[in-house]
Amino acid sequence: MDMQRSFLDRLFESGLLIDTGVEGLYGRSGAFEDVIAAFERLIDRYGKADGAEAIRFPPGMNRAFFEASGYMKSFPQLAGTVHSFCGCELDHMSLLKCMEEGGDWTGEQKATNIVLTPAACYPLYPTIAKRGRLGDQGGLYDLQSYCFRHEPSNDPARQQLFRMREYVRMGTAADVTDFRQTWMDRGVKMMAEVGLDVEIDVANDPFFGRAGKMLANNQRDQNLKFELLIPITSTANPTACMSFNYHQDAFGTKWGLALADGAVAHTACVGFGLERIALALFHHHGLDVNEWPAKVREALWG
Amino acid sequence: MDMQRSFLDRLFESGLLIDTGVEGLYGRSGAFEDVIAAFERLIDRYGKADGAEAIRFPPGMNRAFFEASGYMKSFPQLAGTVHSFCGCELDHMSLLKCMEEGGDWTGEQKATNIVLTPAACYPLYPTIAKRGRLGDQGGLYDLQSYCFRHEPSNDPARQQLFRMREYVRMGTAADVTDFRQTWMDRGVKMMAEVGLDVEIDVANDPFFGRAGKMLANNQRDQNLKFELLIPITSTANPTACMSFNYHQDAFGTKWGLALADGAVAHTACVGFGLERIALALFHHHGLDVNEWPAKVREALWG
Repeated sequence: MDMQRSFLDRLFESGLLIDTGVEGLYGRSGAFEDVIAAFERLIDRYGKADGAEAIRFPPGMNRAFFEASGYMKSFPQLAGTVHSFCGCELDHMSLLKCMEEGGDWTGEQKATNIVLTPAACYPLYPTIAKRGRLGDQGGLYDLQSYCFRHEPSNDPARQQLFRMREYVRMGTAADVTDFRQTWMDRGVKMMAEVGLDVEIDVANDPFFGRAGKMLANNQRDQNLKFELLIPITSTANPTACMSFNYHQDAFGTKWGLALADGAVAHTACVGFGLERIALALFHHHGLDVNEWPAKVREALWG
Repeated sequence: MDMQRSFLDRLFESGLLIDTGVEGLYGRSGAFEDVIAAFERLIDRYGKADGAEAIRFPPGMNRAFFEASGYMKSFPQLAGTVHSFCGCELDHMSLLKCMEEGGDWTGEQKATNIVLTPAACYPLYPTIAKRGRLGDQGGLYDLQSYCFRHEPSNDPARQQLFRMREYVRMGTAADVTDFRQTWMDRGVKMMAEVGLDVEIDVANDPFFGRAGKMLANNQRDQNLKFELLIPITSTANPTACMSFNYHQDAFGTKWGLALADGAVAHTACVGFGLERIALALFHHHGLDVNEWPAKVREALWG
């Protein structure tokens, strides 16, 4: 924890991240954003020839789709629902009085139809299902959005609002496991280009509660999730900077994703934690990008 | 309203916007995003020589700062607070039971310390105040973020989650009113470059309730807010695509923003509604960017 706090303090002092008074919620400097943009161009370079369809969803999604996704079963503690004031002028006067007196005014807020996006690909599945059957080649999509996870922490690599870049593949089991393997290989190559040592390991999601332990074990046993790990503030607990997830036909069944021949689609997604990758670069090469190794600068800014 | 609905339908059919089942919440195609990115580069070109400090905040802000801002006094109906599940395993079981039975499970969600950002510059003022006095030249900041406003609508130009690019100037009254005038002139020039006819008019914010009418009249009478208007779905009611706001010393006093000599800073901000500008371009030049006038393509893609 000390290493995390001290890295966070150095990021604040250098101005790369900006303290907002809430753990895990930070402003970013122009220099920080330049690194994110450069790394996204590197991702583009690796992914371009595949011809993915680019879609950008905003940082919130339809609550009905979120509810259907089952997220509240697995990760209730991480989700963020968006609530608004829906009262009349009299209610407004009560609300202001409550605020003035330092009371909790938020209890009267009502849930809207919007939930913060927990992972960039969540809005994709119902969107694609609505289009009807996939084409002969299945589908390949390129996504990026801010995502929300309610997990306040002083580890700069664990933010409440952060950006995730994703590729999602829909097709046969072979299509999507090939896709996942291709990106595991590319992930290792990309990180080598920018001078980061990585390892890839089997992993599990942080499912909630005791019942969640079983889900986690199951996910591990079946090799459904891999992570690309880079040491940031700890070599003993390196940080997951990419994840590679095979959903089998779970999402295909849930959302009704069908291949051209009518069979249920299998799906897989590959996610880049953009803030984590930027932080790994700053931690490894120093806080001043001008002093990064020439080879790394070349890979990022060409 | 018919014109709005029919433009929205054309945007859905062309794939530029993607229906998510919630009014005012849309996915964007790669082509749509390319226009936003190109217009941001045009903004950069106009603003670059001023040397603004770039800061990027995530789409949520510290609730304490939001409360202090007075936003709930003026626009309670538009704000979005972020709520999470904070219970134990037993609470989780009740929650899942409630969801299964189709009940309203959201009432048990508790407010987090995060509120969705209502305008890109809201997190800036307390951030700059914390740094201490401004330098001799005051301050100039370049911001962009997704913003939230709870106003479901079938007008594609009125979205619940949309991006706002902003420049904020802090300085003497003369500094900040000069800044505002400079950007009004630049705004007209930029829109002419991309083939859009505009007008600039005095305006007011949509303050809540009857008491809000007085605030609105006051804002108008003092010429505190101007808007750059472009006809999208209505020539009678053109859409505000930029706004130019002079806050006098209101934010300086509220947040304790001090000039080098200790005097209270005046502030002004200039905002670009990026989705609105993109929609104005698509409405005016057609849904296929390849068929836009050469002059417009040259201004955007060089």
